Amino acid sequence: MKEGLKIVTIGGGSTYTPELMEGFIRRYGELPIREIWLVDIAPGEDKLKVITGLAQRMWDAASYDVKIHATLDRCEALSGADFVTTQFRVGGLEARIKDERIPDLHGMLGQETNGAGGIFKAFRTIPVIGQIIEDMRELCPNAWLINFTNPSGMVTEAVIRHFGWKRAIGLCNVPGIAEMREPLNIGYKPGELTYQFAGLNHFHWHRVFNARGEEVTAQVLEHVNEKNGGTPVNIYMSPFDGDLLRSMGCVPCGYHRYYFNAEEMLEHSMEEFRRGGTRAEQMHRVEAELLEIYRQPGLHEKPEQLSRRGGAYYSDTACECISAIYNDKHTRMTVSTQNCGAISCLPDDCIVEVSSLISAAGAQPLAWGEMRPSMRGWLQMMKAMEECVIEAAITGDYGLALEAFTLNPLIENGREGRRVLDELLVAHEKYLPQFAPVIEKLKAQGVETNDDVVRDLLKRGL
Amino acid sequence: MKEGLKIVTIGGGSTYTPELMEGFIRRYGELPIREIWLVDIAPGEDKLKVITGLAQRMWDAASYDVKIHATLDRCEALSGADFVTTQFRVGGLEARIKDERIPDLHGMLGQETNGAGGIFKAFRTIPVIGQIIEDMRELCPNAWLINFTNPSGMVTEAVIRHFGWKRAIGLCNVPGIAEMREPLNIGYKPGELTYQFAGLNHFHWHRVFNARGEEVTAQVLEHVNEKNGGTPVNIYMSPFDGDLLRSMGCVPCGYHRYYFNAEEMLEHSMEEFRRGGTRAEQMHRVEAELLEIYRQPGLHEKPEQLSRRGGAYYSDTACECISAIYNDKHTRMTVSTQNCGAISCLPDDCIVEVSSLISAAGAQPLAWGEMRPSMRGWLQMMKAMEECVIEAAITGDYGLALEAFTLNPLIENGREGRRVLDELLVAHEKYLPQFAPVIEKLKAQGVETNDDVVRDLLKRGL
Amino acid sequence: MKEGLKIVTIGGGSTYTPELMEGFIRRYGELPIREIWLVDIAPGEDKLKVITGLAQRMWDAASYDVKIHATLDRCEALSGADFVTTQFRVGGLEARIKDERIPDLHGMLGQETNGAGGIFKAFRTIPVIGQIIEDMRELCPNAWLINFTNPSGMVTEAVIRHFGWKRAIGLCNVPGIAEMREPLNIGYKPGELTYQFAGLNHFHWHRVFNARGEEVTAQVLEHVNEKNGGTPVNIYMSPFDGDLLRSMGCVPCGYHRYYFNAEEMLEHSMEEFRRGGTRAEQMHRVEAELLEIYRQPGLHEKPEQLSRRGGAYYSDTACECISAIYNDKHTRMTVSTQNCGAISCLPDDCIVEVSSLISAAGAQPLAWGEMRPSMRGWLQMMKAMEECVIEAAITGDYGLALEAFTLNPLIENGREGRRVLDELLVAHEKYLPQFAPVIEKLKAQGVETNDDVVRDLLKRGL
Amino acid sequence: MKEGLKIVTIGGGSTYTPELMEGFIRRYGELPIREIWLVDIAPGEDKLKVITGLAQRMWDAASYDVKIHATLDRCEALSGADFVTTQFRVGGLEARIKDERIPDLHGMLGQETNGAGGIFKAFRTIPVIGQIIEDMRELCPNAWLINFTNPSGMVTEAVIRHFGWKRAIGLCNVPGIAEMREPLNIGYKPGELTYQFAGLNHFHWHRVFNARGEEVTAQVLEHVNEKNGGTPVNIYMSPFDGDLLRSMGCVPCGYHRYYFNAEEMLEHSMEEFRRGGTRAEQMHRVEAELLEIYRQPGLHEKPEQLSRRGGAYYSDTACECISAIYNDKHTRMTVSTQNCGAISCLPDDCIVEVSSLISAAGAQPLAWGEMRPSMRGWLQMMKAMEECVIEAAITGDYGLALEAFTLNPLIENGREGRRVLDELLVAHEKYLPQFAPVIEKLKAQGVETNDDVVRDLLKRGL
Repeated sequence: MKEGLKIVTIGGGSTYTPELMEGFIRRYGELPIREIWLVDIAPGEDKLKVITGLAQRMWDAASYDVKIHATLDRCEALSGADFVTTQFRVGGLEARIKDERIPDLHGMLGQETNGAGGIFKAFRTIPVIGQIIEDMRELCPNAWLINFTNPSGMVTEAVIRHFGWKRAIGLCNVPGIAEMREPLNIGYKPGELTYQFAGLNHFHWHRVFNARGEEVTAQVLEHVNEKNGGTPVNIYMSPFDGDLLRSMGCVPCGYHRYYFNAEEMLEHSMEEFRRGGTRAEQMHRVEAELLEIYRQPGLHEKPEQLSRRGGAYYSDTACECISAIYNDKHTRMTVSTQNCGAISCLPDDCIVEVSSLISAAGAQPLAWGEMRPSMRGWLQMMKAMEECVIEAAITGDYGLALEAFTLNPLIENGREGRRVLDELLVAHEKYLPQFAPVIEKLKAQGVETNDDVVRDLLKRGL
Repeated sequence: MKEGLKIVTIGGGSTYTPELMEGFIRRYGELPIREIWLVDIAPGEDKLKVITGLAQRMWDAASYDVKIHATLDRCEALSGADFVTTQFRVGGLEARIKDERIPDLHGMLGQETNGAGGIFKAFRTIPVIGQIIEDMRELCPNAWLINFTNPSGMVTEAVIRHFGWKRAIGLCNVPGIAEMREPLNIGYKPGELTYQFAGLNHFHWHRVFNARGEEVTAQVLEHVNEKNGGTPVNIYMSPFDGDLLRSMGCVPCGYHRYYFNAEEMLEHSMEEFRRGGTRAEQMHRVEAELLEIYRQPGLHEKPEQLSRRGGAYYSDTACECISAIYNDKHTRMTVSTQNCGAISCLPDDCIVEVSSLISAAGAQPLAWGEMRPSMRGWLQMMKAMEECVIEAAITGDYGLALEAFTLNPLIENGREGRRVLDELLVAHEKYLPQFAPVIEKLKAQGVETNDDVVRDLLKRGL
Repeated sequence: MKEGLKIVTIGGGSTYTPELMEGFIRRYGELPIREIWLVDIAPGEDKLKVITGLAQRMWDAASYDVKIHATLDRCEALSGADFVTTQFRVGGLEARIKDERIPDLHGMLGQETNGAGGIFKAFRTIPVIGQIIEDMRELCPNAWLINFTNPSGMVTEAVIRHFGWKRAIGLCNVPGIAEMREPLNIGYKPGELTYQFAGLNHFHWHRVFNARGEEVTAQVLEHVNEKNGGTPVNIYMSPFDGDLLRSMGCVPCGYHRYYFNAEEMLEHSMEEFRRGGTRAEQMHRVEAELLEIYRQPGLHEKPEQLSRRGGAYYSDTACECISAIYNDKHTRMTVSTQNCGAISCLPDDCIVEVSSLISAAGAQPLAWGEMRPSMRGWLQMMKAMEECVIEAAITGDYGLALEAFTLNPLIENGREGRRVLDELLVAHEKYLPQFAPVIEKLKAQGVETNDDVVRDLLKRGL
Repeated sequence: MKEGLKIVTIGGGSTYTPELMEGFIRRYGELPIREIWLVDIAPGEDKLKVITGLAQRMWDAASYDVKIHATLDRCEALSGADFVTTQFRVGGLEARIKDERIPDLHGMLGQETNGAGGIFKAFRTIPVIGQIIEDMRELCPNAWLINFTNPSGMVTEAVIRHFGWKRAIGLCNVPGIAEMREPLNIGYKPGELTYQFAGLNHFHWHRVFNARGEEVTAQVLEHVNEKNGGTPVNIYMSPFDGDLLRSMGCVPCGYHRYYFNAEEMLEHSMEEFRRGGTRAEQMHRVEAELLEIYRQPGLHEKPEQLSRRGGAYYSDTACECISAIYNDKHTRMTVSTQNCGAISCLPDDCIVEVSSLISAAGAQPLAWGEMRPSMRGWLQMMKAMEECVIEAAITGDYGLALEAFTLNPLIENGREGRRVLDELLVAHEKYLPQFAPVIEKLKAQGVETNDDVVRDLLKRGL
């Protein structure tokens, strides 16, 4: 790498970008950045400008000589990049509204990275990441891709296994949140305990050990249902069944609530829906407020309000990961990377989210070994679903999409489940070129477009 | 084996026994039976007498010198047995009513071999089969156990892996029904096509080939939703999604409807429930009618009415299996046996239901090889669930039971799911000694006994 | 398939062809052959004519209307073929002499399907079979390839996995010889016992059961060192260590002598070599004698002398396999086919030699399950060696060839081993186009051509 | 752990003990040792006294208040121990002489941890370590066992899998030597490169990366045959075949020379033997010299001469490992520990030697993933051999011992191989109680005792 790093952020117009800037500024001593390119698409140009302005003000306030570039031309940005981070959303908030609202309309969970919504997020995102990889192959063949576009695990699997880009690591903030909050509940400080994670993105478990080598997982479990139990704030805190968790002997991630408390989580989702707002719509409000704050010319640091969102720490994790690679730090982080036997009941070459050492050579996972049957059964099913989703996202094969839907435990199998699939396909037509012939047929059959779903929400001022 | 075989049927008072007799009579030329012992428990003594009477009349009419013994003393029967068949139901129809009604009461599928009901059938049955094995070890150490007590796969796994009885084969009539009916739908006669089955009991798939080696699975799939499509009559025929099946490229078994059409099957189950009758209650009526017929002293053959039940051909399959062992016939049958790699995504030592050759040395499975991801994901999850169920059935561990419930796709995870578990534990207290301390605690907490569920039904004349 | 079958035999000029004819004639009732094409290469034209003459006389004597065609044009023959059998030797006897003599010269075992010789047979054969497959793809896309060109397992693996021709089965006569001879040693007739084989070509084990399901493997083992113990006549009968075999609990194949009695087999090979003759040279004499007999115009049946060779029954096995496919017979045979989990310690998609059912849909292996550690260790190493050999044969990669040599237990690792590799590469230059650059370099380094090895032998009238 | 650690060293009379003392003294700041118990057996009492004296002088010179106890009573020492290190040799140098000489007498490699000698070292050692574990279970149930008794991998597998002591780690100095020497050959300092090891004890490979994440394995390979190439000094430096190593793409350990250069290593072993000395005999001389030095009352530090032995750094590795556990350091070390999928082609529960993180919770392996076929084949065979050896060591089963011999690539299979087995059994009778009936029979058959082998050597002043 030449003097000074070139960092590119695809989806740079995200309101999370100031956190990323803060993370880079804090690490400037170890990460000699030369320039940062924020890339976004035309419809987000205004937002991108606001973000770029704040970002530059942050760097200037820190008095480091780093230039922030904003561009709509991805190729210009990628040329010669050292690290590329991805945090884009294909279709933006509008698409998210549909991901959540359409399942809700059919009595199913509306959630953006799990269930039907998560599958469609993958369907929209994977072809785009494929194009980014093609550009990178040409313009920055040695760059590292740090992906935190959701669904992070599936996107990373597509990048590594299907598009063949080995220098990639997938990130998520969920493990980090657990590591920061849980120790406080049982009388330890963050960093004093050793965390062992294994599973898939948004579907992992962990065990915890203290410095005397004693397992303290059981103690952590006692607090898992508390406000600071380690679950991200965007997940409804339906209490886990203590007997179930004690029997499993591992701490689930917050997203397991969708699976282990499916009934309560669905109820809550439907209630939110009836009350006239899903997460997407709440996010819309939060985003608008944040942007208003960012516009203030006097602001030159990450505002407090950003930390309260579900995605908090995401960007900091990304900065740490980049530094661990650049400085060959061998930092222990939980990331999405190739399994290599670390979870021995899953294929060697699939992507898992697992405690790893991050060095200049990338992520090397720590071996977890065998899983007890109940965890193994869940994991194997979820990984099989992910494989179907990715394959369908690449091929546009309707049958594979149906197979993925059938495996997904948050989608009710049968008539309504298929309707959700069909309506989401039509609703997201613009972002699903790979499914074009299928969507054509569905439209000819009169499948709902659900445009009114979004229109109605927007009308109500969202 | 000495001259003339001693056959023992545990649960001999079943109304299916005449079919078993018919099967043996038809094969007397190849299966030189000396005596048949029908074993049952005290509450079924009357029924046992009726059945024994008819059975003896059937043999006498065939003018073979075979003596039918009825006994309540299992040990007397097992002593020196050559083949032991098991077709008992622990708790009888009353327990089945609870297995079906209690999930229904909480809005979940009430079905006797799948969902919560199936799990409890295993909980009640596995300890009893364990005692039978103990007796066999002492009284007939070389006998073959032909199990068709449901859930047949899990019971067989308990027998072979946990109780260590290797001379055991599990049977089910579902594969046989497909082999008899499906060929007719596509212009072949039964026996002209080659069937390849793989999966678990009540959760298997098959592929079909004609005598020219051409795969005709796609043609079979075209008729899978027809009345004679191969699904047992006891399963509600909610039509399979053709696109899903074509994509999978295999014919599912009828029980897959519960999983792939969960919505419709649940609706139908709830409707039956509201109309005042589940399968158990219908069975009760059918049983009473059959018994009335069996009592007729002039009857000396299997009555026509028996064939119309869901379990049809079960017993014939058992007779054929016994003959294949006795005569070293190397017959191709689909049975529950040790995997040995036949389904390579499942552990070597678990029990699977797979096309096998039956010879004097037992069942040897034919290797199926890899499964496509969607089938693999389903199978691995279901097998993991089975492992939890069996382990819980043996240990009486409440946590394991919860883990099994969590994995079972027909049980809604969350508050209500746990309630179903608790109420079923209390409801079946009499048959669950291994769970005694757990049940004690639940009762102290005031968990429903649901005795009125059965009482109410019985009052209404069932 | 249209009326009357077209059979093509590549390497039709082999002296084994009369046995093949006999097998087809005996099965004419079930295998309606229209024409048989014997294909060979120019240097074998004379021999081909002699064989074709005898073959036609044999069919005429049987008074069936089957026409035997001889051709040097493979494509003419393959066009529209139903079954293609392969029994060719690339390089003929001369190459075999080098395969055996050159290792001998360096104090290593000279044997044509094991050790260094076997590896080079694969190196010469695999590219040719690749070309045959290319022709078949165009000229007879539905034909079955029945391979009995050695090393049969590796050639079949190349055909199925690397060249992608799924309609292929590999054959060997070794399992059949065991099934015919061993029963007689322990008081049974051939066909009365059930054989269970698993392993790799020329490296498999079997267990044996009688019609009462009792394992009689131990009894078979008692006779394994006798003249009629089941070992092919071409293998020197150094006695197996009985304690070793009893501990393994399985009957090894005759070729295991090379591995388990490496010392004695090497001694014998060296002695033969010093006495002035290896197997190749003995074969040369036998071949010449046979051909003389075949020329007799009055001969119209397979002569007795043919049966006494090591390859006896090979061709009959091929006829039976073809009939099993054509007639969908579901015959139990031991063949080289895709593993599919049958031997669970080997990869699903590799080729193994295992008891299978042969039907119109091809070979389906019977699952053997786990191997005890000592058998597992041997098998996994031998399969890894095969993988290296095949990959090297296709790529011409010298490093891979070295890796294969290192794994082969019959090649001494070190300086001399590498010399054997280099000399064999140079000696077989004509048949190893894929290794051309490597051979060029070796020749420049002055590696021996060993042409005198053959010249010397030929001079002595071989 | 209470204030101050109690360390126990079984085999404390070893001449390596001063190195261990030095390692502990150097780490006293982080490892607050209270007392060290050196345990040995009666015949070593004198040596133990000499060592204890020097050890105490070393601690006193460092002016730390640590008491060194010498005892022949293992139980007295183990009571309340925190860490137990094992460095004993069952049978001492005399047994080693037989391990090396008897194979040599039959023309096979005489080496103490590989080949026949290594197998017998395991046969003698495993029953003793079993007794130690029994004592530990009672006297120090929370102690960590740090094993560096060879064959370290098999002994550790016996400890963890068979005797069920999970708090155990196996050590070897070979990986550490590579890490210290190799970097210097290619322009780096020790510690600047990242090492990735995987395999079995004395049979592992490694890859090396620099701080920019670039793989430098190829560069390391260029120097593998140099004096400072990383091979321990006790191994004869027959040069590796560069083409072979480049093709494998990994650096083998020094012991691979025995396998990849079997011819040269055997020649060298035979030459040493003919010249009247094997390693054991050289060691005997070195030991005597060292002991003479240790006796000097003025000596109070580890003498220079010790560092020049093959086992150098062994003890320092042990101290570092103990400190990593005690201080929860998460140090990256290459140790023998449970596989847990780290090497995905080997069973989850076997013991492998692999880069791991050492913390208070023990060793957690880093996942290596798939192996290329040639490495996989070797590893799987060697692990299978280890399994047979361990099982035979525990059961005294002669057949298993034969199976192990058959798999071992350094033992020629056949008549002579078996003779080596038989003679070693008889020669080591005193230390092989588990094989008593077998040995009785062999002696009755007149198998050589080979006592003269040792007598002769001792006569010549060794």
